[in-house]
Formats: sequence, C-alpha cells, structure tokens
Amino acid sequence: MATPTPLAVEDVLRVNGSRRFAAALAAASPFASLADAVLAARRIWLDKVDVTGWLEAFAAHPPIGSTSPSVSKWSQEEQSAALSTATDSAAQELAEWNARYREKFGFVFMICASGRTAPEVLSELKRRYTNRPIVELEVAAQEELKITELRLAKLFSSETPAPFTSAE
Amino acid sequence: MATPTPLAVEDVLRVNGSRRFAAALAAASPFASLADAVLAARRIWLDKVDVTGWLEAFAAHPPIGSTSPSVSKWSQEEQSAALSTATDSAAQELAEWNARYREKFGFVFMICASGRTAPEVLSELKRRYTNRPIVELEVAAQEELKITELRLAKLFSSETPAPFTSAE
Repeated sequence: MATPTPLAVEDVLRVNGSRRFAAALAAASPFASLADAVLAARRIWLDKVDVTGWLEAFAAHPPIGSTSPSVSKWSQEEQSAALSTATDSAAQELAEWNARYREKFGFVFMICASGRTAPEVLSELKRRYTNRPIVELEVAAQEELKITELRLAKLFSSETPAPFTSAE
Repeated sequence: MATPTPLAVEDVLRVNGSRRFAAALAAASPFASLADAVLAARRIWLDKVDVTGWLEAFAAHPPIGSTSPSVSKWSQEEQSAALSTATDSAAQELAEWNARYREKFGFVFMICASGRTAPEVLSELKRRYTNRPIVELEVAAQEELKITELRLAKLFSSETPAPFTSAE
C-alpha cells in the first residue's frame, strides 16, 4: 500500500461479516503494511470477537459449492477450483453433506477453499463432521481467519496495484 | 430411583435450557440410575448439542447474584452461599463485572455456584474474564454441565426420597 489509509467498516465487512470485527479493525487502521493488518486482524478475531460474532461471520458465507447469483465475486473466486471440478453427482453429494453438517453444528461448513477441488472439500467436510461441536467451532474459526487474510490482501491490492492476489 | 420412568422434555428443560439437550435426554430415558442419566447427559451435552444450544442453555440462567423474584428455586439454592455472603458493595461489584463479562463474551457468566461465597465467585469471574472467547465458552459449558448434573440429582430425588441433595 503506497499510503496508509484508514479502512472503512463497510469494506472490512466484505472481508469478514462480524460487525465487532469490522468495527475493531477499522478503528485500528490505518496499517503501514498488509502484514500489520493481518496481525491486527488475527488478534481481534481470536481475542476480541465473541462466539456470536464468529457465528455472524460464518453466516455471511454461502454454502460451499453454491452457484446462487447472490454469491459475492470473492466467494466465487475462492471456490473456483471446487466449482470447476464438481460433477453433478459430486455437487449433489456436497449439498447433502452441507445440510447434514449444518444440522449438526448449526452453522455453514467453513473452509478456505482456494485451490481445493470438490473431492478435497467433500473429503474434508466428512472428516470434520465427526468432530465435537466445540472443536469444530474452533476449526471453522481458523478457516474463517484464512479467508479473512486472503480477502484483506485483495482489499489492499485493490487500493494500489499489488502482487498479493497471486498468493491465492 | 425405584422404577425407571421416562423423563419429560419439560422436566429436563428445568435441568438444562437447551431444547436439543432436553429432547435428546428425554428420548434416551428412562435410566436405571442417576449415574446412567448423568453419563447420557454428559455425552449429549458435549457431543450432540451445538454451540447455539450451549448459548440457549446459558441464557436460561439469571446473572449470578440476581435477587429477581423470577429466579427459579433451584437457582436460588445454588446461589445461596454467594447471596448470603454478599455485602452491598460486593453485590455491586459482582453486578458490574457480570456486565463487563457479558459485554466481552456475549453470554451470562456461568458458574456452578453451589457452596461458593460471593468473594470466591467474584475472584473466579475476574480470572476467567481474561480468557479468549473460545476458551471461555468451553469453561462455561463445563460449569453448565456441573449444574446440569446437580439438577438431574434433584430431579431424580424429587421422584422418590433420595440422598442426592446432600451432594450439593
């Protein structure tokens, strides 16, 4: 980032749907570098955002594999590998397991899908489905954090030409 | 318990305010002994109730130290040591820390208060306030489980004369 500029709450909300997170990160901005922003995001997400805030952030994501027109451009990019490798039957199985996961845990299956194929995502979903709810909550929060970091990079790169998008 | 009788969902809800917990424990009843019921309760609470169900159970408790007339008889009994040892200033400090805790974590401070004095409760609240939200969620859920076990004992003892209440 050429000149540190403050982050707007509404921009941070596109990165992470927790209002508490967005308010705190915006209040902590501007950041001299993406690395500084990522460190602040990590601290806020893990130490300051309560469980309800985590659930709020999860709820801002479409189910993995969703092709609804309301899915954001960033979500589409993150899921492009999974979507391009999903056969009809794989997409169907993913939808069924998503529903089962949501029934058990009460929130959408969170995975940083960038670069992962549909079979990989499905395999991970089935493995994590056996977790205890409290364990799975923390795993999901770590995945949300990875997505948050990738999106922060996109947010920074959209302000000035930057090399970050290749990391995804 | 002389004869195992099925538990009614509404009775289990007095023990633990999570509807998923109550439905599952009632469905698993009758139990041959209190020990069997406690084992089933533990498994359901830790493995089957999702995070939203945990928060639902927490929300069924009054803030510790509350003297509102709507507080249930069981809550009053559990908090009797704390209430009898709370001076006006201690009660005031407890109320303030309760509010601060709730602001940070998004749920009421959960503690199995049986036999604990007001200073002990306050000291524990201050100590736990420094926890990360995900850590504190699990601590609170363990306290809820202790309360659940004590109340299950009361539920069993209310069906037939039983020695369980002395455990509290």
